[in-house]
Amino acid sequence: MAVVGPGACPAGVEAEAEAVGRALAEAGVVLVCGGLGGVMEAACRGAKAAGGTTVGILSGDDRGAANPWVDVALPTGLGEARNALVVRSADAVIAVARGYGTLSEVALALKIGKPVVGLGTWDIEGVEAAVDPQEAVAKAVGFVS
Amino acid sequence: MAVVGPGACPAGVEAEAEAVGRALAEAGVVLVCGGLGGVMEAACRGAKAAGGTTVGILSGDDRGAANPWVDVALPTGLGEARNALVVRSADAVIAVARGYGTLSEVALALKIGKPVVGLGTWDIEGVEAAVDPQEAVAKAVGFVS
Amino acid sequence: MAVVGPGACPAGVEAEAEAVGRALAEAGVVLVCGGLGGVMEAACRGAKAAGGTTVGILSGDDRGAANPWVDVALPTGLGEARNALVVRSADAVIAVARGYGTLSEVALALKIGKPVVGLGTWDIEGVEAAVDPQEAVAKAVGFVS
Amino acid sequence: MAVVGPGACPAGVEAEAEAVGRALAEAGVVLVCGGLGGVMEAACRGAKAAGGTTVGILSGDDRGAANPWVDVALPTGLGEARNALVVRSADAVIAVARGYGTLSEVALALKIGKPVVGLGTWDIEGVEAAVDPQEAVAKAVGFVS
Repeated sequence: MAVVGPGACPAGVEAEAEAVGRALAEAGVVLVCGGLGGVMEAACRGAKAAGGTTVGILSGDDRGAANPWVDVALPTGLGEARNALVVRSADAVIAVARGYGTLSEVALALKIGKPVVGLGTWDIEGVEAAVDPQEAVAKAVGFVS
Repeated sequence: MAVVGPGACPAGVEAEAEAVGRALAEAGVVLVCGGLGGVMEAACRGAKAAGGTTVGILSGDDRGAANPWVDVALPTGLGEARNALVVRSADAVIAVARGYGTLSEVALALKIGKPVVGLGTWDIEGVEAAVDPQEAVAKAVGFVS
Repeated sequence: MAVVGPGACPAGVEAEAEAVGRALAEAGVVLVCGGLGGVMEAACRGAKAAGGTTVGILSGDDRGAANPWVDVALPTGLGEARNALVVRSADAVIAVARGYGTLSEVALALKIGKPVVGLGTWDIEGVEAAVDPQEAVAKAVGFVS
Repeated sequence: MAVVGPGACPAGVEAEAEAVGRALAEAGVVLVCGGLGGVMEAACRGAKAAGGTTVGILSGDDRGAANPWVDVALPTGLGEARNALVVRSADAVIAVARGYGTLSEVALALKIGKPVVGLGTWDIEGVEAAVDPQEAVAKAVGFVS
């Protein structure tokens, strides 16, 4: 399952992202993300707190740029083209909050037919809105089982 | 200048895309696009009608998939990750109509700081709306000169 | 550590690749590879037999194409361009046997300054030859510690 | 047709690359390359001197990095992964001189079944050697007609 969201975000959004990561780990799902800060870092931290596994598909070519909660860091060196890889790597995508990179991931996911669940994210036709982290994970897991 | 838009579209949108291509060629600007059908093909056809140059950055690895109005076809084999290359290759982006691939290109362009002019496209903060093809090209050319 | 090698190979080469995977796992190193058959599959099988972790960076966009010993499969959809990602993801590369894809990975690794240890692979200046799997792993691990 | 070779090279190699570019233009063939210096720049200069068309598929994201003889510059931002795009974009590849990037392009071309003609390049099985620029171009053009 991919979690996408901005690399910088307010504390409230971080808390939501962390809860998403925790719930994914509790559901036994590997978390894939862009590996950087903000929503990505919070989601990874939450996943690790619950014993989950995290993968970070980095835009740069320096593995050291991954946040400390990434188990497997892949420095692609592809720049923003790596966004396509993040969504391809997942069966469904949970988008938390709004950023242009996030929007590109939502769009790429919908383009290739991956379900997208949104939590306070862009209001795009095709995105399934969730009211809280638990519902977001439940819906996303439901899509792929 | 990149022109982005869906690979299939109604005749009215095609006419607009063709006018965008023609106006870009008249302004002496090279047109870069995804090289396929719909908006991309119409824009290329318009550009060639006015003696312009067209580049198609293809998602697949078969150069033959390019529409017949593409001068230089680049089969990337990157799938939708090539959308990032289309917007990187341009100083500004004109988005015509709405599709998820188009939305991803709008988002990627805004993410990397390229100006985006929209013609009947997604209503995303940061996109400069134009009322017709001539205004779209005038605004896009204005951004980069 | 990346292990690169052809997707189909004789049994003798498979045994070597499996021993490389096992030795890497015993050294506590995550194994990154292209995720497919032949050398890649044998190396993953060896790593799993010793309790290691394996990552497969796939050329296609179907996660199901990964061999059964891959823990984390990343379907990039980039075609052979994914070879650059395999070598970027590692601190050093062990090349087993010879194929054109393998040669491209050896070359890309040397180009970006990653150490390459070879086991019955292409005789390219800059590749450090090893006589057996144990020496290959010892040399590769030595390069990065 | 792609011309691949190191980004820095001695004057003698430059003269050969320039002659390759000129001969390609005289044969009416579009030249695709990595767009940078050395062999790439000399080949583009030769092509332009004979009225040809040149395409540069750049590794970085700055179009300004293209050599001055590139007509269409595509800043991919993919790093060395762009080497796969250079060879995919051509029906055949002419490799001039030796570098690791060049070797990766030779290998990627052979991997995906594109003919490779070599001029003082790596001695790899499958590369068709030529004795001078004229023969290199004649052989490469022969492969694709």
